[in-house]
Amino acid sequence: MTDEIILKKQELAKFTYAVFLAMGCNKNDSETATSVLLTADSRGIDSHGVARLSGYVRLWEANRINPTPQFKVERESLSTATLNADSALGLVSGPFAMKLAIQKASQTGMGMVAVNNSNHFGIGAYHALLATKENMIGICMTNASPLVAPVNAKERMLGTNPLTFAIPAGKYPAFVSDLATSAAANGKLELLQRKNKPAPEGWLQDQDGQPTTDPFALKHGGALIPLGSDSDKGYHKGYCLGATVDIFSGVLSGANYGPWVPPFVSFLPLAANPVGLGIGHTFMAIKVDAFRPIEDFLSHMDNWISRFKEAQPIDAQYPVLIPGDPEYFCEAERAKSGIPLLRPVYEDLKGLAVKFNLEFP
Amino acid sequence: MTDEIILKKQELAKFTYAVFLAMGCNKNDSETATSVLLTADSRGIDSHGVARLSGYVRLWEANRINPTPQFKVERESLSTATLNADSALGLVSGPFAMKLAIQKASQTGMGMVAVNNSNHFGIGAYHALLATKENMIGICMTNASPLVAPVNAKERMLGTNPLTFAIPAGKYPAFVSDLATSAAANGKLELLQRKNKPAPEGWLQDQDGQPTTDPFALKHGGALIPLGSDSDKGYHKGYCLGATVDIFSGVLSGANYGPWVPPFVSFLPLAANPVGLGIGHTFMAIKVDAFRPIEDFLSHMDNWISRFKEAQPIDAQYPVLIPGDPEYFCEAERAKSGIPLLRPVYEDLKGLAVKFNLEFP
Repeated sequence: MTDEIILKKQELAKFTYAVFLAMGCNKNDSETATSVLLTADSRGIDSHGVARLSGYVRLWEANRINPTPQFKVERESLSTATLNADSALGLVSGPFAMKLAIQKASQTGMGMVAVNNSNHFGIGAYHALLATKENMIGICMTNASPLVAPVNAKERMLGTNPLTFAIPAGKYPAFVSDLATSAAANGKLELLQRKNKPAPEGWLQDQDGQPTTDPFALKHGGALIPLGSDSDKGYHKGYCLGATVDIFSGVLSGANYGPWVPPFVSFLPLAANPVGLGIGHTFMAIKVDAFRPIEDFLSHMDNWISRFKEAQPIDAQYPVLIPGDPEYFCEAERAKSGIPLLRPVYEDLKGLAVKFNLEFP
Repeated sequence: MTDEIILKKQELAKFTYAVFLAMGCNKNDSETATSVLLTADSRGIDSHGVARLSGYVRLWEANRINPTPQFKVERESLSTATLNADSALGLVSGPFAMKLAIQKASQTGMGMVAVNNSNHFGIGAYHALLATKENMIGICMTNASPLVAPVNAKERMLGTNPLTFAIPAGKYPAFVSDLATSAAANGKLELLQRKNKPAPEGWLQDQDGQPTTDPFALKHGGALIPLGSDSDKGYHKGYCLGATVDIFSGVLSGANYGPWVPPFVSFLPLAANPVGLGIGHTFMAIKVDAFRPIEDFLSHMDNWISRFKEAQPIDAQYPVLIPGDPEYFCEAERAKSGIPLLRPVYEDLKGLAVKFNLEFP
């Protein structure tokens, strides 16, 4: 069994908040950043929660994260804005930008905000779900450290570039599609590395571009493979989606793109001759009742969901799942049972407690 | 070798135009519909070109396509509209709706039009590319006849539900990502059926939900598999994307969705108790210079494209391709060499010539 320590959500949140304060973030921003990370841990996306906290701290130590950013709207129209995030935590600029998109959408039916000069924004679902609370559809994307090889390439050119949609429902929880455009997210690979287990076929290629199951392939010059995994199964589609997310997040916003995207890990150098500022994100909010009355929409969403739940299963033990449900059920469960941390993550957090002289739960 | 007949694009366009006129479409609509189909054939998307012409005719004969539609904007805001397409050809309502989205975007920075009561709209790339001509990014989606099983299901619940992005560039042709959210589009399967060849693994499941390579599996109660092909390779992502496209196209617009989407083939009955009108589409236009000056964007797009073209290849004979380039090169080639038609498609068109008493090239 994996060695795990279980902490209550509130304890972990209190500690995380204290770390952001210690980095120099103000109270509001510390609260927002904590909320994004704890939402990831609560929803079972452990790779994007407090497991990354020490990574953010190291980026701050390397002067790549600014704890007291001044956001600047560089360009604006009725439905759109471009935001320079002043090297903020993406955990802070993300919710800010999504709220601006929501405000635009409440005026014109939809809003879109492109963000440059930002950093890793945590889980997309957090941001997209801000829109569903206002009876809007939320969309977000971000580019990320280059780890994925385009079709035909052995060079890493794209991040795992996630694309997220959150759609409100009536009696059911919101529909959430939140996915990396690679066959597997890097977080899943890190888990296999810790257990020293081979990766499934279709996730990785080696330094010569040949398929491999070595979970350490990335450390030896290999790359992640786009969603689809091989030519027969349509991995050009994963490449197309990842490239689209990169262009929206980087080229449209004025951030870096492709191989110029700054790495998340602070020990890797930044690319020479950057083509933009920091990493980039895109947020959209779409007001449902600009298209049809909200009651009609919500009742049809409920009908969509209940019909899909009833789809004839291959095995009656495994019914069809609605996108977002596994994370929603995990959130309910962990609110009661607490949040399990792997031993290395727990030790990592204890190290932060020592560094900042904080109490540790 | 496949038995092919090559026709000049102009000849084929003239004939196609005459067929739409014979169905009762006016000159403008016939021209638009012809242009959409011939663009598919020119770009090498043979499954979505004139090969479908007799299918549209049969839907018209079944009174499911209205050749003289009155489009009605049912709901409108500064950036958005919902359009009832009055059972039009999607080949006609698609360009109309995209132009409305473009008009909205020119006012507010972005526009989105949801369409209900429509029919099959041909290739998404045609519609999305209308936006790039105005220095905008174009997005479109449509739902379609249920052929794809969600993860865990043996029942067909979703169409191949394509998602298309077209992004303008400077000296290079536009970037176009135009993909079905299933592992393989149905058109590719039809080709294998004609040749009686097995399908690659990962495309299909049989009536019990088990993997199969039988190209006729759909005819025996099987289903297409979402992009990703299996659990290890992330086919829940293809399911999530297909479901998202269905909800945008159907639930938001007021069209049918999921298993209620009307089949493309006229001999299959419509679902009992429809939940909306016809099939649905979504179109978005995003004005680039609402986000950054257009010259900056275009030069960074050119830089993105040239850097990706130069990515280190696995095999120097197969360089990295830019999404949209294969279709662009095919278009240039077929403008000179003509459009190859498979014998059954050619015979099909000859049948239409007899039916409508038209000259056939």
